[in-house]
Order: sequence, then C-alpha cells, then structure tokens
Amino acid sequence: MGDSAAKPGRYFSLSELEPQAQERLPKMVYGYYASGADSESTLRDNIQAFKRRRLLPRIMVDVGHVDTSFSLLGAKLKMPVLVAPMAMQQMAHPDGELAVARAAAAAGISMSVSTMATYHLEDVAKAGSACPLLFFQLYVIKDRDFTAKLLQGAAEAGYKGLMVTVDAPHLGHRQADERNQFSLPTSMSLRNLEGLQPKGAHGHSKSSISQVFTSQIDPKLTWDFIAWVRSVSTLPIFVKGVLNPADAHLAVQHGVDGIVVSNHGGRQLDFAPAAVDMLPAIRDAVGRQVPILVDGGVRLGTDIIKAIALGADAVLLGRPVLWGLALEGQQGVEKVLETLRSELELAMALCGAPSLAQITPSLLMGPAARL
Amino acid sequence: MGDSAAKPGRYFSLSELEPQAQERLPKMVYGYYASGADSESTLRDNIQAFKRRRLLPRIMVDVGHVDTSFSLLGAKLKMPVLVAPMAMQQMAHPDGELAVARAAAAAGISMSVSTMATYHLEDVAKAGSACPLLFFQLYVIKDRDFTAKLLQGAAEAGYKGLMVTVDAPHLGHRQADERNQFSLPTSMSLRNLEGLQPKGAHGHSKSSISQVFTSQIDPKLTWDFIAWVRSVSTLPIFVKGVLNPADAHLAVQHGVDGIVVSNHGGRQLDFAPAAVDMLPAIRDAVGRQVPILVDGGVRLGTDIIKAIALGADAVLLGRPVLWGLALEGQQGVEKVLETLRSELELAMALCGAPSLAQITPSLLMGPAARL
Amino acid sequence: MGDSAAKPGRYFSLSELEPQAQERLPKMVYGYYASGADSESTLRDNIQAFKRRRLLPRIMVDVGHVDTSFSLLGAKLKMPVLVAPMAMQQMAHPDGELAVARAAAAAGISMSVSTMATYHLEDVAKAGSACPLLFFQLYVIKDRDFTAKLLQGAAEAGYKGLMVTVDAPHLGHRQADERNQFSLPTSMSLRNLEGLQPKGAHGHSKSSISQVFTSQIDPKLTWDFIAWVRSVSTLPIFVKGVLNPADAHLAVQHGVDGIVVSNHGGRQLDFAPAAVDMLPAIRDAVGRQVPILVDGGVRLGTDIIKAIALGADAVLLGRPVLWGLALEGQQGVEKVLETLRSELELAMALCGAPSLAQITPSLLMGPAARL
Amino acid sequence: MGDSAAKPGRYFSLSELEPQAQERLPKMVYGYYASGADSESTLRDNIQAFKRRRLLPRIMVDVGHVDTSFSLLGAKLKMPVLVAPMAMQQMAHPDGELAVARAAAAAGISMSVSTMATYHLEDVAKAGSACPLLFFQLYVIKDRDFTAKLLQGAAEAGYKGLMVTVDAPHLGHRQADERNQFSLPTSMSLRNLEGLQPKGAHGHSKSSISQVFTSQIDPKLTWDFIAWVRSVSTLPIFVKGVLNPADAHLAVQHGVDGIVVSNHGGRQLDFAPAAVDMLPAIRDAVGRQVPILVDGGVRLGTDIIKAIALGADAVLLGRPVLWGLALEGQQGVEKVLETLRSELELAMALCGAPSLAQITPSLLMGPAARL
Ligand SMILES: Cc1cc2nc3c(=O)[nH]c(=O)nc-3n(C[C@H](O)[C@H](O)[C@H](O)COP(=O)(O)O)c2cc1C
Ligand SMILES: Cc1cc2nc3c(=O)[nH]c(=O)nc-3n(C[C@H](O)[C@H](O)[C@H](O)COP(=O)(O)O)c2cc1C
Ligand SMILES: Cc1cc2nc3c(=O)[nH]c(=O)nc-3n(C[C@H](O)[C@H](O)[C@H](O)COP(=O)(O)O)c2cc1C
Ligand SMILES: Cc1cc2nc3c(=O)[nH]c(=O)nc-3n(C[C@H](O)[C@H](O)[C@H](O)COP(=O)(O)O)c2cc1C
Repeated sequence: MGDSAAKPGRYFSLSELEPQAQERLPKMVYGYYASGADSESTLRDNIQAFKRRRLLPRIMVDVGHVDTSFSLLGAKLKMPVLVAPMAMQQMAHPDGELAVARAAAAAGISMSVSTMATYHLEDVAKAGSACPLLFFQLYVIKDRDFTAKLLQGAAEAGYKGLMVTVDAPHLGHRQADERNQFSLPTSMSLRNLEGLQPKGAHGHSKSSISQVFTSQIDPKLTWDFIAWVRSVSTLPIFVKGVLNPADAHLAVQHGVDGIVVSNHGGRQLDFAPAAVDMLPAIRDAVGRQVPILVDGGVRLGTDIIKAIALGADAVLLGRPVLWGLALEGQQGVEKVLETLRSELELAMALCGAPSLAQITPSLLMGPAARL
Repeated sequence: MGDSAAKPGRYFSLSELEPQAQERLPKMVYGYYASGADSESTLRDNIQAFKRRRLLPRIMVDVGHVDTSFSLLGAKLKMPVLVAPMAMQQMAHPDGELAVARAAAAAGISMSVSTMATYHLEDVAKAGSACPLLFFQLYVIKDRDFTAKLLQGAAEAGYKGLMVTVDAPHLGHRQADERNQFSLPTSMSLRNLEGLQPKGAHGHSKSSISQVFTSQIDPKLTWDFIAWVRSVSTLPIFVKGVLNPADAHLAVQHGVDGIVVSNHGGRQLDFAPAAVDMLPAIRDAVGRQVPILVDGGVRLGTDIIKAIALGADAVLLGRPVLWGLALEGQQGVEKVLETLRSELELAMALCGAPSLAQITPSLLMGPAARL
Repeated sequence: MGDSAAKPGRYFSLSELEPQAQERLPKMVYGYYASGADSESTLRDNIQAFKRRRLLPRIMVDVGHVDTSFSLLGAKLKMPVLVAPMAMQQMAHPDGELAVARAAAAAGISMSVSTMATYHLEDVAKAGSACPLLFFQLYVIKDRDFTAKLLQGAAEAGYKGLMVTVDAPHLGHRQADERNQFSLPTSMSLRNLEGLQPKGAHGHSKSSISQVFTSQIDPKLTWDFIAWVRSVSTLPIFVKGVLNPADAHLAVQHGVDGIVVSNHGGRQLDFAPAAVDMLPAIRDAVGRQVPILVDGGVRLGTDIIKAIALGADAVLLGRPVLWGLALEGQQGVEKVLETLRSELELAMALCGAPSLAQITPSLLMGPAARL
Repeated sequence: MGDSAAKPGRYFSLSELEPQAQERLPKMVYGYYASGADSESTLRDNIQAFKRRRLLPRIMVDVGHVDTSFSLLGAKLKMPVLVAPMAMQQMAHPDGELAVARAAAAAGISMSVSTMATYHLEDVAKAGSACPLLFFQLYVIKDRDFTAKLLQGAAEAGYKGLMVTVDAPHLGHRQADERNQFSLPTSMSLRNLEGLQPKGAHGHSKSSISQVFTSQIDPKLTWDFIAWVRSVSTLPIFVKGVLNPADAHLAVQHGVDGIVVSNHGGRQLDFAPAAVDMLPAIRDAVGRQVPILVDGGVRLGTDIIKAIALGADAVLLGRPVLWGLALEGQQGVEKVLETLRSELELAMALCGAPSLAQITPSLLMGPAARL
C-alpha cells in the first residue's frame, strides 16, 4: 500500500517536495507560494533553463576530497547557496522566518530576510545569530524616513548586507492570488511595516499584498536611489532583480556591491527570460568587479554547477525552503539544505571539479555553450 | 463544488474566456467563431508565435505613471488596440455589433465593422458615435456599383477609415463549418449586402457564407484596385491581410495609408505564418511611411508589447471580443478590453517602458531577436 | 448520437480517412497497409516534414481562374498527382487495382501499377484505358527472362512509363506484419508473378511477402541495370526510391527519364529522411534535366504546393487511395482525388499562385527555406 | 485476451523487452537495472540521441551479401557489438554471468565481465571459453595489492583485455535504489571482492553497493594510474567512461589501447551528454590511433550504423542483455543478440553499405551532421 515516497518528509530529490507541501498547506497559502505571474511561462522556464543544459565531465581527477565552501563579503559559507528573501513565512509554519534562520545557521549558509517578513527583523537576526551572513531585503517604502529607519534597524540588528529588490515597482499579476482572494491570515502581520500610515484607497478585488504594494511601495525608483541608500547605511548593497546586461552595467557604475540576477521566481513579469540564461551576458558586462548571485529554479546540485559555470558566484534558493518549512519546520529546512549540499558535493566529484574554482564554462554544453 | 473560475464572466486571463463562451453558444456558432482553416496549424501558431518570444525588462525606470495612449489617423485612443472586423456578431448576442461598438466607445478605442455585419453600418456607427475611430471593413463585391455605394454609405455614416480585406479572394476551408453545415440563423441577415442580386448556383454542401463568397466576392483584385477605391472614397485606406514583405512594399507603392499584417485569424490559408513573425521584415520593407497594425492571437498585455517591439504600431483584437459579447453583451466586451488594458499597463511598468515609444526591439528576446 | 464524421465515407480532410478504414479492414490488412519499418520514425516524419513548413502567400493576384493541370511524358493530367504503386489492392476491395485505375481515369490523373498487383497488369490497363498515363512499377526479378517478359507485357498492354523501384533490395522490417503473421489471403494471388519458379527455403516466421522478396527479388542491382532495361524496353524509365542527391546525379548520368524521390512510405529503411526534405538538394543535383516526382505523406492540398515549391514537379499519393478504396471502392478513390484537387485549387488561389508555374521556392518558409 | 506481444520472450524490437522483464523481476532488482542517476535526463538522452539522427541511404549497390564481421585486438567478432560490463547478473537469472558468457560465445561476440560480478571471473571465463574476446572490467580497489591480484587472476583466467572504468570515483545517485533500499540478495555475493577488508563505517540509509563503493573504490585516480596498471598487467587497457575530447586525448597520451565513450548508461552524472553526441569530437581528438567503442542506448540495428558513422568502431550493449537474461536465461540473451544482428544486417543492406567499412559519416543526417 502506498508508495513510501508519499510519506511527508521522505524524498529523494527536492522536486518531490512541492506536492507533499501542497497537501499540507491551505490552498490559498500554497497558491501564493507556488504561483508565478500570468501564464507562468517564466516560472516554468526557470526550471527548463537548467534542464536544457548539459555538463561535460572530466575524469581522472583526484576527487578524494571535495570542497564546497564559499566566501562572500568576508563570511565563510559551507556552500555557495543563500536562502532567498521570501515574504510571510509564518503561513508555512508558526516559527516562520525564525525556523529558517536557525536552519541556515545550522547549515552554515547565508539567509536574506524579506521586508515582508512575519517576524520582526531583530527577532529573525537573533534566531539566526549563528548564521555566517544575514542579508536584509529591502522593498523601498514611499515614506523615505520609514525606509531609512528600517535600514538603520537592520544594521543595528546585525545584518551584514542589503538586497534592494528592483524588479517590483508594482506587484506582478498572479492569477492564483486573485482566484483565492489571497490575504495574510489575520493572526499574522507584516511586522517590519508596522507603524506605516495606510495610504490611498484599498480596493477589495485585489489581493491584500497587492494593496500594500500599491499604497506603500515606491514605483519611481531610478539609479540615483543607490546613492540615497549609501547616505543612510554603510552596509554593502546588492540589487536584486537584474536581467538586462545593460542594467547590470549601470548597477556597477552606480557603485553597488553585488548583483542578484533574478526574475523574482517568475512572479513579476511573465515572459521575462530565465535568470540563468542571462548570466553569461551579465558576467561579460560586469566582469569580476562585483559578485553575481542568481536565483530561480535551483532544485538540484547540478543546477548550482551550471549556474556557476554560466557566470554566477552563488545561487539563492527559494521555494524548496518554504516546502521544507511547511513539512517539518526548522528540521525540514535543514534537510532541504543538506540534500542540496550532498548533491552538489557528489556532482562536483563526478564532474572532476573538486573545488568551486574548478567549475568553469568548459564544463557546459548546450545553448549557452553554443551562443 | 466547482471551481469559481467556471462562473461565466469570472476570469483572470482572456484565455479562460473561450471555454466559457463555448458552453453558452450553439455548437454551430462556436464552430464558426473559433475555427481556423484545414488543420488549424496557423490558428495555433498565432498563439505560439507570441509564446515563444520573451521580454527582457529594464529596471530602475520611473514607472509611477504609465501612458498607454495611442494616436491613429489623428484620433486619440486609450490604448493601441482596435476591435478587429468580425462578421455576424448577432449570433453571439442580440445586440451584436451595436454592443461591441458601445464597448469600444466606452473603452476609448477603435473598432472596425465588417461588411458581413448583422447590423447595418449606419446603425453600428450610431451606437459607436462616441468611438474615437471607426473603420469600415470592405469585402469587395463583384458588382462595383454596389461596392461604391457601400463606401459612400460608410463615409456618410461617419466612418473614418477603410480596411480592405485582401486575403480572402475565396473563403478559407473551415472543416467545422462543413461539419456543422453552418448557415446564418434565419432570424438574422447580412444587412449591408441586402439588395445584392443572387449570382450563380448555390450548392448545398458548402456553408452559407461560403455561398455568398463564391457568388458575390471578387477574386480578381489586383493592386490597381486601390486607385479605384480612391476614385470613389476619400477615406484613408488600410489593406488587411498582408503577410509577404514584398506585398507590403507594393501596398505602399500603391499609396495605401496603412497595413494590417494578418492571416485572418488562421481562417484563410492554413500553414500561413503567424502574422507577428512577419512583422520585422515588413517593418523593414515599409519603414515609417505608414502605420502597421497586426492581428492574430493577441490574448495578453505582454502580447501587445511584443507586437510593438517587433514593429507594429498597434494590434487588432479578434475572438476574445466575441467571447465577451457572448457571455455578457456590451459589458462583457468592456471587461475584455479593460482586462487587456490593465495587463498592458502593468506589463509596461514591469518592462520599464512607461510609454509606447519606449517599447523598442531591444525589449525582445527569442527567435525574432536572433534572426 | 455519434459525431457525423464517424459515418464511413464522410470526411472533411484525408487525415480522417485512416481511422475509418481501419474499422472496416481486417487487422492484418490494415497493419500491412498502414505500417512502416521498425520504430516508424520515417513514417511519422513523412507527415511532419510537410507540417513544419509554412507558406508565405501573395495577395492582389487575379485568382478568378486557377489552373491545376500538369503535363508528364506528353500526357495532360488534371493535377500534378499520380497514384503511387501499391501492392495487393484486392485486400482492400474486390475490385482492387481495377477500381483504382478507373478512379484515376475519372480524375484525369496518372496511376502506377505494382508488380505485386492482385490483378494482371493487362486487366488493370484495360480498366484504366481512359487514364492519361499508366506507369508499370517494376520489382526486378532474379530471373531476368521473366523480368524482360514482364516489361514487354507492360508495353503491349499500353503502359507508357516504367517505375523501377530501387529502395527494396530486401523487404523492410515491419513489425506489424510479423506480429500479424501477414500473408496474402488464399483467395488472391500475385497475378504478375505467376509462373515464377519458387526459390530457396520458405521459412514460416516471416511474412509471406517477405518470402517472395527473399526468394525472387534481386538484391544485386547496380547502375548498369538501367542499360539492361533499355535493351529490353523502349518505355521511359523512372527510378523510384532515390533520397541521396549523389544517387540522383548518378541516375541522370545513367540516362533515366525521371526520378521518384521516396522512402517507400517509411516502409523500408527506418530513420531514412522524409523525401520532401531531400528535394531541394536533389533538384540542385539534377537541375531541370528530368522530372522529379516525390511521395510520402501527401495528405493536403497545401502539401502539394510545398512539394512543388521545394523542387518537385508532381507528387505520388499512396495510402489515402487505399483508404478510399476500402471504404467505397472506385467511388471512394474518386472522392479522395477530388478532395485533394479542390484543396489544391483553393490553396493555389489563397497563395496567389493560379498556375503551377507560379509555385516557386519564394512561397516557402521554414527549415528548407532557411537551409 | 492479451496481445500476443505480451507473451514473455516474443517481441519484434528490443524496446519491447524492458516492460516484459519488469513484470518478471522483483521491483528492487528492476529498479537497480533500469534506473539512471537523479532526474534520469542522461538516461533518456541516450535513447534520444540515436532517435534524432537520420540515415541517408545509397541505392543501386550490390547487397547480395552483407558482412557484419569485425576485428578487435586480433579477435574476429561476428558483429561490432560487445556485451557491456554489468554488475550482479545473478539477480536476473541463477546462471547470471555464466549464461551471458555462453550466449556471447554462441553469438560470436565479445563480453566484458564486471568487477562486481556475482560469479568468480574464472568461472565466467570457463563458461565463455568459446567467446572470441573476453574483457575484464576493473573498478579500482583502494587496496592496490588486491587490485593487482585481480588483474593477474584475469590474465590467468584467459581474459584478453581490460576495461578500466573511470567515471565512477563515487557511485551515482540513483533514487530508485534509495527508494527500494537496494541491496544484493543475501544468497548472492560479489565473488571477486571476497577477502577484501571491510573499511569505514557502513551507514544504513544508502544502498549496499553504495557502501561498497564508499569503502572500497578509489576516488583518487589520476592519469598516472595507467602506468601502474601496465606495471602489473600485460593486457591491453581500455578506459571506459570518457566523454570529454580533452580526456580522450589525454588517454591516448597515457598510452591506453582503446577508449569506451560512455556515460555509464546514465547512471553516474545526471545531465552528462549522450555518449554518441561526443563521438565526432572524440574521433577528431584521437584520430585512428586507438579503437573507439561507445555505449548507452543502443537498441536497434540502425543505432549501430549511426554510432559507426559518428566515429565509433563498435558498440557495447547493456540493459537489453539483462532483460533477455531475466526472461529466458542464456537463450534469452542469444535471442537479443540475434535480433540486433539481423537488424544490423538488413539496415546495412538498405543503406547500401554491405560492409562496416562502407559506413561513413556521409550516411548521416541530423544534428551531428550539421555541427
Ligand atoms: C512566496 C515567495 C515570496 C517572495 N517574496 C519575496 C520578497 O519578499 N522579496 C524579494 O525580493 N523576493 C521575494 N521572492 C522572490 C525570491 O527571493 C526568489 O527570487 C525566488 O523565489 C527564486 O526562485 P525559486 O523560488 O524558483 O528558487 C519571493 C518568492 C516567493 C516564492
Ligand atoms: C468569427 C470571425 C469572423 C471574422 N470576420 C472577418 C471579416 O468579416 N472581415 C475580415 O476582414 N476579417 C474577419 N475576421 C478576421 C479578424 O478580423 C482578425 O483578423 C482575426 O480574428 C484576428 O485574430 P484573433 O481572432 O486571433 O484575434 C474574422 C475573424 C473571426 C474569428
Ligand atoms: C500498402 C503499400 C504497398 C506498397 N507497395 C509498393 C510496391 O509494390 N511498389 C513500390 O514501389 N512501392 C510500394 N509502396 C510505396 C508507395 O509506392 C509510396 O512510395 C508510398 O506509399 C507513399 O507514401 P504515402 O503512403 O505516405 O503516400 C507501397 C506502399 C504501401 C502503403
Ligand atoms: C545494471 C547495470 C550495471 C552496470 N554495472 C557496471 C559495472 O559494473 N561496471 C561498468 O563499468 N559499467 C557498468 N554498467 C554500465 C554499462 O557497462 C554500460 O555503460 C551501460 O549499461 C550502457 O548503456 P545501456 O544500458 O543503455 O546499453 C552497468 C550498467 C547497468 C545497467
């Protein structure tokens, strides 16, 4: 009776997690977490972009010891993986962002905490105090004073970097959220936005997070905003949501400390390209001036190798973290991270690349290699 | 019980409309509206041609205000969308073309009224008197005097432009219509063709509209016909049904005022290319001498951006208008147009292109970009 | 109840015929007619090769009259279509080859009669005496005297051309025939091979036609065989089964009068290319020295246009003839030919090519056009 | 009533064998034999890489006699096919490797015996004493003395060549084996590894063969290992598991006697390319200095022709041998080999290539031909 793989928490690949989590989560929450914008073409392409690339391994390399460790902003991470900033994690598990921070700390990797978290950024920082590198992800609030205070709070709480999300001047159109009339359960709140003045009319036909966006988030940002951030914070600044090589170039010209190549997990502009497809051109545009992170669709150890071979320094991991959290809280997230780490280690061995430095474009076959 | 999306009139994307309308409409009517020629390969490709293109967005552009407005023949439209000329709209709803004209007026966009309308062109013009730009679509009748009178009537009724359809010297072969032995319900008639002498033998194995075509429509048109139209009408002349860049060039040489790149919604020559696939070459052939419209398969706001980036000035919208009409009359058409408009607005914001002028080929990725 | 399309003999496209015929025919017969070699990859590709090409129509051409007529070996055919040589047609209908010959005559087109016919070549010629051009298809018998007599008989019976099939030195491996232990029903016989001495051992594990091949057909033919045919017959010689441009070149060097580009309907070498895919290179190799016919997968009027635009002069039609024959005898074949003719006529009109001479490579889009 | 094809042992193509064997074998055994690493993308691509290539046949070649014979290391084989080394064949049939060796001998082809065999290499050699060419496949044991003794034993037992497998420094991650908690049934053992000291901790979450690998197999091999093999054995050395042309070049520089281009049947690095896709570049890198064998996905006679046309001298056949063994022991393997041989013979005839030397790259169409 019953395939053993159906037991929650038992899986042999991260791709098995989503259906398990779907069974556990309320439809509305699952819809919010899983869905992408409009026809979800970008959401699907994030996965396909990895699948269509092949790896051409080397043999007869001593792989008795494989080293997955990675340095970012002076911090030493156990692997080139960061937990992506994701809003409202309490919907998956009561411990929400706290559990994720503890798991990231246990796994020795970095985490980025969303402006839209359901725990206060200080509390998350405390939970993740053993985490080698905490980022605070910023959605820019129209009220600039409020924004400035958020950034100061982040610095005081021990965050070591900022991710300024720039691909969401308006919230993407996610049909599932409209269909489910998504809103944050009343027992939870966006803790870091407390104290903000409600602005504008709040319609009822749109999802509640869409209302927050429309009323509070600034759609008028231009590149000079980077200088403003510098003026209120000394933390290193990564911009998250770059796809166009021309914008990557501008970002560096405006002095950012890092770039996150991302289409926001397919949740903003439908038909945007897969982020990994843009990596080679972005690495060309940027050179080695700043670190390049990438996210969207990372599900296998080989995906990380492909991302690095295409030009990334490290990857962000999104939804699988939420699925692990939904299934087993902190422990579930740890299992997700450990699965990915052991896959990465084995794949590096089988590629004949026992350290990250040995992951070069020559490992790649497929469209990117032929461009 | 029942997914809420099944409620007629509730939808989150225009692609959901067709199955809802199919449930409402008689099989014969649905077949006539939905079907394409022969194997329907062109019908499907119209949709796919949009799907296979990606958009490469810009970031850090002030998109606090997005302007979708568009000018054509001196008229100001709220967006670069025209309702395509489509025959026999009473079959969808008793108000037929009148309802569509009212909806186009309410949405502030242009409409093109078919020679094969089930309301008289004057009545439609009255219903759409608030419409910024009414086109009359001409099927050229063998009886040239009758044709001339039609054109004069259109001018007098207030139409501001002509669309001469040139891809239908014979009617395409639509299997659904043969299967359903399609004919216009006897309670309706082709009002604008009343008074025409019946010509030739009327077989019974063919659909009734096919009989009208065979007997009345002129399959002998050549380019000198444009001069004849000029001789009987002062209205601007668009030719509808251009796919070959060589023909686009000839059209301009023969003095047309605009071009509609179209395969007639996949209803004429099966295996004709998707119209959008021909846009770049046609724009090359024509330059900026005349406006270029395109139709076939527009279903999403991003489709409009893609069409413009490929070389169009604006798009025509076909079947979704009929589905909205079938479901809720004028109001249903308004909802369709508003859905598309709000999608376009959001997509422009997320592309970092807050006005139509900022939609350039550099936004495109995919086959066309690589050609 | 029941879709009207299920009524035998009622169809709107030739692709609907096969399932109807399948219902009527014994499994063994259907298997023999329908199947291809091994994995049937070539069988499927014959159809796909047409589907992946598009037609780029011209407009504003006078298509009041469309002329599909075609001349071959001095004969005038109503359209550029020949009935392909196909073995054992009595299995489909008692009138077998006689019915097909009569239908070809009625349609004003050419027919090619197989060596493996179930009526004697003289009787078929009599039935098809009104046929503008009868070909006799030759499988070369090891016994050369027998072969010579066959050819003389064909000339005397009024055949006007020979098709020497050169792609079947051994019979292809068709799984369906093995599965069904195919053999010609005992009530029928291969009339043109009567009097042949049985040769070699006749195993039981192979299909009966496979036994005839192994024992009687010569697998040692080389190009000097053409000269031998000339020495015993004055009829024009077409070689059937050419795919390689190098062989097309050799064929012309050895003085053939025409070439049939064919993979034998996917029944011989699995993974051979679709015949139409080879047309441009073969036309290049051969120039205008001899007519080029092609077969495999022709099912639509547009297929004929594509074949001609790719370099063919005319096409052969295979299986649809058998399906029509199985459903309604001579009348069924006539309906098949008339369906194709009217599709061709309409497609030529919609392409703006009212005569065959106007079907040029510039009408084509797709892989071939891009090669 | 069941399709006759369902009768075990009755089949018309090797691709029908796997489902038949699956019915017979315990789930755990079938899983171990059939599965590939991770998402099985490489496993599938091995099959697809053959399917996407076409063969462009020649005609009018005397194919009265077709010669499939092939010479390797001085031995004469009836066809260019070797049985691939595959572990633990007793799980398929009590006679295991003995039955396979006898079948290879009967078919007049070569066999390669795995280090992980369930019969002792001497016993297999005895069973296969009539086999024209026996290879011993080596997994390099950390204990070098043990390894040296294995090699000496192989030479004494009559093996004529070595295949050193170099693509498995660690065992690939096969989800089916984890799922089924795969371990060798206790009634069987890895006979050639008896006497080895257990090493390291043996976890329970991994498959038992995975434990053997982790504890016993050396992940530190580099190219100087070839010289060590030479120092303890005079047998010719083939390295198995080469995909990268750069490694093929290094292999030859280090003096190997042959190369097996292989991704280990998709069981090691998921997303490695199909082996046949690498053949042309590897043949380029290596020239004619050493024989090149290839494996992965060979299922049809035409596959062998494609492999040779792409640059291989011969192919290894893997899983179909296990399926034949599972269904009918030695006889089942013989049937598999005879099916492939007769397909190869017919395909060579239909290609107009009556000997292996006539199989050249000009027979190929498809991606490789276009590169
Ligand atoms: C449920 C959810 C919420 C997200 N919330 C945020 C957010 O608050 N800020 C942000 O910059 N990105 C957010 N993202 C985007 C992620 O940071 C990341 O770009 C994306 O999830 C990566 O793709 P993946 O889920 O396929 O791994 C969110 C993504 C998801 C799935
Ligand atoms: C039911 C129907 C009727 C049509 N009637 C006409 C017509 O009378 N005149 C004309 O020029 N085009 C006609 N068209 C073609 C449309 O103007 C337009 O080219 C096409 O519908 C656009 O494709 P879409 O439906 O995919 O948006 C018709 C299309 C449909 C679907
Ligand atoms: C049932 C059947 C029997 C055939 N017999 C012969 C034959 O006797 N001689 C021959 O040259 N080709 C023979 N062919 C091949 C046809 O002449 C022709 O090449 C092929 O059927 C064309 O492909 P189509 O069926 O897709 O139109 C046969 C084909 C079929 C389907
Ligand atoms: C069940 C199984 C066991 C295998 N064991 C070994 C082995 O012990 N040593 C080795 O070098 N390759 C081994 N292989 C790989 C094969 O030698 C060969 O590379 C592969 O099976 C060829 O692909 P195919 O199965 O698609 O024909 C094994 C393959 C299978 C399927």
